[in-house]
Amino acid sequence: MNTRAVKALAPGATIGILGGGQLGRMLALAAARLGLKCHILCPDPQSSAFEVVRRATVAAYTDNGALDRFARSVDAITYEFENVPADAARFLAARKPVLPDPAVLATTQDRLVEKTFISDLGIATAAFASAATREELDAAVAKIGRPAVLKTRRMGYDGKGQATIGDGTDLTKVWRDIGGHPAIVESFVPFEREISVVVARGGDGAVACFEVTENEHRDHILKVSRVPAAVSPVVAVEARRIAEAIAAAFDYVGVLAVEMFVVPDGAGHAVLVNEVAPRVHNSGHWTIDGASVSQFEQHIRAVAGWPLGKPVRYGRVEMINLIGAEVETYTQWLEVPGAAVHLYGKGAPRPRRKMGHVTRVFPEPAS
Amino acid sequence: MNTRAVKALAPGATIGILGGGQLGRMLALAAARLGLKCHILCPDPQSSAFEVVRRATVAAYTDNGALDRFARSVDAITYEFENVPADAARFLAARKPVLPDPAVLATTQDRLVEKTFISDLGIATAAFASAATREELDAAVAKIGRPAVLKTRRMGYDGKGQATIGDGTDLTKVWRDIGGHPAIVESFVPFEREISVVVARGGDGAVACFEVTENEHRDHILKVSRVPAAVSPVVAVEARRIAEAIAAAFDYVGVLAVEMFVVPDGAGHAVLVNEVAPRVHNSGHWTIDGASVSQFEQHIRAVAGWPLGKPVRYGRVEMINLIGAEVETYTQWLEVPGAAVHLYGKGAPRPRRKMGHVTRVFPEPAS
Repeated sequence: MNTRAVKALAPGATIGILGGGQLGRMLALAAARLGLKCHILCPDPQSSAFEVVRRATVAAYTDNGALDRFARSVDAITYEFENVPADAARFLAARKPVLPDPAVLATTQDRLVEKTFISDLGIATAAFASAATREELDAAVAKIGRPAVLKTRRMGYDGKGQATIGDGTDLTKVWRDIGGHPAIVESFVPFEREISVVVARGGDGAVACFEVTENEHRDHILKVSRVPAAVSPVVAVEARRIAEAIAAAFDYVGVLAVEMFVVPDGAGHAVLVNEVAPRVHNSGHWTIDGASVSQFEQHIRAVAGWPLGKPVRYGRVEMINLIGAEVETYTQWLEVPGAAVHLYGKGAPRPRRKMGHVTRVFPEPAS
Repeated sequence: MNTRAVKALAPGATIGILGGGQLGRMLALAAARLGLKCHILCPDPQSSAFEVVRRATVAAYTDNGALDRFARSVDAITYEFENVPADAARFLAARKPVLPDPAVLATTQDRLVEKTFISDLGIATAAFASAATREELDAAVAKIGRPAVLKTRRMGYDGKGQATIGDGTDLTKVWRDIGGHPAIVESFVPFEREISVVVARGGDGAVACFEVTENEHRDHILKVSRVPAAVSPVVAVEARRIAEAIAAAFDYVGVLAVEMFVVPDGAGHAVLVNEVAPRVHNSGHWTIDGASVSQFEQHIRAVAGWPLGKPVRYGRVEMINLIGAEVETYTQWLEVPGAAVHLYGKGAPRPRRKMGHVTRVFPEPAS
């Protein structure tokens, strides 16, 4: 296992964060608890993360002048989203430590490269095949069979750039629906449940996994996470082993999330990796209230070269996303005993936009 | 019971906070969780709270121009410390809602007025007498007896402006030691333990008490808080009743802390009020990690006109202050399983300065 030396920042040091959404916001709030400052760079002047830091830069990721000033003002750099342009990451990495290593992005920004990387580690995924062109799509579907899922290789999240291929699906139409971009075809997985593991890895190679989380999606967007997941100990151990193996293979520094399917497999169950997110993840939001150290703090600790925390979970936890107009229910949630309400300060609710979340912890002794 | 109508702020509204220390900082972090913005005003350009907000004003509390601009930029105003100059509070209250009502400060800024107020509610305190002058000091000590404690009426905290009067104490010397300011003499209380109650009260008169906290001071500064306190149910009920009665008597909006002594009293125990803090309080810091809604969030909710939370406690909790150079132990605390480390971003540690705290939650089912 390789490790990369990460210089420990002193309290009061500044971490630069690329991206100003709710993940950047919660990273900055976690850094503040630890006495670390953040400087956030984002092209959107309305970024909700700007409100919780002293220093914010509105600039395009292609604005090298702004990136250079940003790099000079910080001690280390991280990001809240996986689609950081490779050029920007390289430009910044030449000036200040960028963690996790931007090389990870080259893998996770492309579904085909990511799936191949995971397969090559001997970790199971749904069967997949490249569909770089309309012609290759025919061959891929012939190989994978139906039902299958067509996904663009790049820039897909929350169900964007995806289409289902059923028995009667016209391949020319779905190809057009996803914009004719290079894609992959994945075998449709009749999963029993969706789970994820949020794993933190330090520059010293230390690893700390949060417990396996069970996720419920609605309309391709995470709606509810529950911890612990209703899976067997064998599945839980396997899920954590997979997440740790992927983090180690990337020589990763920071927090990484692995989304997996649990499928019935003869007498037992198998775990298939669906997706890797090289960042803090919505399915880890429960850790803010439900554990002594959150995913956001683990990420900040890793980037700052501080030791990872050893989180204790406070009980059974449920996290509910407030999506779009659902955010208006916050007034009701404020009254629910034990409910921890989080609003992201995003302004007007748009459909499918993540506006906040609620965590409910049902305390029980640590296991 | 009077109540004052507090207009509910919309998410995205701005709360102005007077004072930029760690309490203001943690108030701003709590507001951020709820999607509310904060604008902090403090004369100290190095205020640690400035780092966690977008808008900060460096100005004296006597700078009416700055206060006017501050008031225009916010939707409601609160404060992190009880020594807000009365003129500033009045100036601001003429422009925007200031909560809790500045009238409370007139009482709590003066130990004699505060103790009299509490006594008049029929709530027990240590015996006390005014020592406005050197001559009155003789009469006060004659009345109260020795041992006693001499305290300046104004501006005392963390043991500042206090002196013990023992059998052989020269009254002229102690009078000089405390600067010859108007003072009170209090009977020395041979307490069994020190406790506090943090109570939140909304503009609608709703009240939510956190559980009784047991406090251990070292050198007059809070060192450790433990919840639940090792007191009988009778004492716990009495302590909460007292805190709620004081909040109601003030027609208070926000969070208020009452420090009390538990003293053996014949077959049982009695509770004597030591001090009232019209603000969030160090002995309530455990609520950030140990409960679903923190004292800071309760205060923000009350000021914002939102319903108070119904906090669930996650287990037995211990909070340890990191004072002065003790902050350097943070690297060790980072490694302790279950420890939640908080650093206030205050720069160089000076003796007696509160630099951070650590919370340890030992999960157990909610009672």
